Amino acid sequence: MAGMDAAQQTPLPVGYRVLANHDISHQLAQRPDIAAALGGTPAQWHVRDVADGNLNSVFLVEGPNGGVCVKQSLPWVRVAKDDWPLSVERAFFESAYMQRTEPFALGLAPRLLHFDASLRMIVMERLRPHTILRQALIAGVQHPLAARAVAEFAASTLFHTSDIANPFERKADDVALFCKNHALQRITVDLVFIDPYTHNTRNRYVSPHLNAWARALREDGALKSAVARHRNNYLSKPQALLHGDLHSGSVMVTQDDTRVIDGEFAWVGPIGFDTGNFIGNLLLSWFAKASHRTDAQKRDAYRDWIAQQVQDFWQHFHDRFLAHWQGWRGPSDGYPASHFDPDADTTELRALKAEYLEDVWADTLAFAAIEMVRRCIGFAQVADFSSIQDPALRARVQAPALALARDMLVNPHHYRTVQTLLRSLTRHDLLRPDSTLPHQDELSHA
Amino acid sequence: MAGMDAAQQTPLPVGYRVLANHDISHQLAQRPDIAAALGGTPAQWHVRDVADGNLNSVFLVEGPNGGVCVKQSLPWVRVAKDDWPLSVERAFFESAYMQRTEPFALGLAPRLLHFDASLRMIVMERLRPHTILRQALIAGVQHPLAARAVAEFAASTLFHTSDIANPFERKADDVALFCKNHALQRITVDLVFIDPYTHNTRNRYVSPHLNAWARALREDGALKSAVARHRNNYLSKPQALLHGDLHSGSVMVTQDDTRVIDGEFAWVGPIGFDTGNFIGNLLLSWFAKASHRTDAQKRDAYRDWIAQQVQDFWQHFHDRFLAHWQGWRGPSDGYPASHFDPDADTTELRALKAEYLEDVWADTLAFAAIEMVRRCIGFAQVADFSSIQDPALRARVQAPALALARDMLVNPHHYRTVQTLLRSLTRHDLLRPDSTLPHQDELSHA
Repeated sequence: MAGMDAAQQTPLPVGYRVLANHDISHQLAQRPDIAAALGGTPAQWHVRDVADGNLNSVFLVEGPNGGVCVKQSLPWVRVAKDDWPLSVERAFFESAYMQRTEPFALGLAPRLLHFDASLRMIVMERLRPHTILRQALIAGVQHPLAARAVAEFAASTLFHTSDIANPFERKADDVALFCKNHALQRITVDLVFIDPYTHNTRNRYVSPHLNAWARALREDGALKSAVARHRNNYLSKPQALLHGDLHSGSVMVTQDDTRVIDGEFAWVGPIGFDTGNFIGNLLLSWFAKASHRTDAQKRDAYRDWIAQQVQDFWQHFHDRFLAHWQGWRGPSDGYPASHFDPDADTTELRALKAEYLEDVWADTLAFAAIEMVRRCIGFAQVADFSSIQDPALRARVQAPALALARDMLVNPHHYRTVQTLLRSLTRHDLLRPDSTLPHQDELSHA
Repeated sequence: MAGMDAAQQTPLPVGYRVLANHDISHQLAQRPDIAAALGGTPAQWHVRDVADGNLNSVFLVEGPNGGVCVKQSLPWVRVAKDDWPLSVERAFFESAYMQRTEPFALGLAPRLLHFDASLRMIVMERLRPHTILRQALIAGVQHPLAARAVAEFAASTLFHTSDIANPFERKADDVALFCKNHALQRITVDLVFIDPYTHNTRNRYVSPHLNAWARALREDGALKSAVARHRNNYLSKPQALLHGDLHSGSVMVTQDDTRVIDGEFAWVGPIGFDTGNFIGNLLLSWFAKASHRTDAQKRDAYRDWIAQQVQDFWQHFHDRFLAHWQGWRGPSDGYPASHFDPDADTTELRALKAEYLEDVWADTLAFAAIEMVRRCIGFAQVADFSSIQDPALRARVQAPALALARDMLVNPHHYRTVQTLLRSLTRHDLLRPDSTLPHQDELSHA
């Protein structure tokens, strides 16, 4: 594994050790600002291990006055422990992402309180009583503000770190910094863009049910060509500072608050990677709902609501990005005021903006599809599907998602707008009688 | 001036001082390998100041056994001295470019012998009896191997530093390093991509003769939109490690040797920037020849030869780049062997390669045009034109170049191949009776 090889060559920082539950209070007590925020004495602080991902320790700490969240990079991928060592550098990049985007995050991310470079430990605002958006989607709970809030966050952070809103030197500094995020980018390159289209022991699709689909993806030259175009875009189109992992598991919600977390995959890349990731995961959630065989009316209403969130997300992202652009009066080497008077709403500038956002949509569509494929076929599965106990049923709801994803990549002209994308869900719906899905026939060839 | 502001904030390295002619031998004597290469004693070394550019000191040193070339970054732009301070970092980037491309340069660049980080002094192979290709073009001397050799150099260095031929980590390291080349990139961004389309005191076009052209460029929204697309490509399309200034003044030639020099503008960007720069300058040379009013037959034959060099350059670049790709069996995150078997010449891989090179051609065309505009209108003029003493005549041969450049940018579909580009020269030729050039009428409006 390339990720493994790279990690083995990256030494741990001097002073690094894996923190246990009982270490946390001692570490926090050394920071007067954090100790004061928690209140009382360290003995009164309650520390709880809440890690649910693969890569990090996460502790929630509650004191008499308030709480904080502590996140530490571990030197391995949790699921595999010693089998998959991983550089702990990622906490540095997550804290750098939080710092760089903080002025543009509009309160839609937790506040960074402290970064300990030796321990690769981030202390940040504790969110309560937030839940993970993905879990809420699985549970069928509506959070009406969430998709628009993520769109707001994405539009603002992406716009303000792009060539539209910076002298090139500032953006080049971001590129230079985040280009060093090798370990997690190797994971993205391999797990998202390469493995799902190959024979690879890391792939974890439902077998034998999806064998025919996995084989079809491996053998589809047109599909791999489309993936190649977008893999090369991911590597060589540094439009803006990406979150890099903006799925529904990286969003925490309450009914009136939304926060984007986990920016450790930060990378300067194509804007559509972030927006596509979010849309792709909403679509996966929509497909997973087909597994609910009770209370069809409630299920269908919730699926319609998810589809509406996709539309709201894209429309709001589009409108907010444009609004930031229209309001921008700062430096810009991409569209300098000396070429395009921002106060004169010229045909040319309007056309350039429309062209820019059409290009972001094309990327969004492709990256959404690539995300859908890798979450059904690759190593990192999503709970929307893995919570479906019956493998045959899981495969049956994943197959339509794969069919749609393939068509989005190979026939992008079918999906020039978010509306046409959403209308295509009907065609790919396992639950509808007019579904043209090849799932049963294809599966029988497995 | 942005370049000035940035430079004022960059301190000189500890130990830096501007070297004079009499310092050089002392500096070289401290390096036993260089002293041995020169031979004899320092007192026997002959040092000659040969700087002809704006940015650096250049000394040729001859000893009994051989010679070296010494190049030092100066902390200002020579032409303006104290008016335009400039960071001396560029010597570091030039030496980094020489080191990184050396394995792929095929002997088509001078060998780097030493880089002194304090003095920002490069010691490299002395080329003799080479002349600058631009001077040879002005003098009407043919160097039949030059264009193909530059194509060979470009194809090899660009291919081997691209995502086609590297794991992404290696390329990301190049991006991170050359992203710090702020001072010279600010020059490119301003002088190439922004200034010529604005009112700017740095612009130096022939006035009043080209006033109408300068105004037409400033007021042409479609043109500035095309420039914006390619400025953004320059900033955000890191395909490969560019030379960054690959014009005929950066090539030294004899009848049987060709060397590419002066990589201080190195930047990871779109491949077409290097190829377009070279082609754009050959076209400028072709246009400048129209000023020769004696010996029409010889002049016309030489112009035909220049046009042939444009075709040879592009064809050879195209073929060699493809040949490197077809032969590549090393790591590739752009087109991994697990997706595209390099030994199976599939339709898809052939199509991807053709698409890649068509995209490079589109960029080549646009960057050639942008180079042509800036060399006629902007700060850094070229000797092909500035050697024409009569300003009216100079303007008359520049106007057709501007007309062609504008059309290349606004109507790129007219120029899908190098052959169609070359055929268009006839239409834009001041010397031909069927020329449709608006030069005289337009000039009268100045």
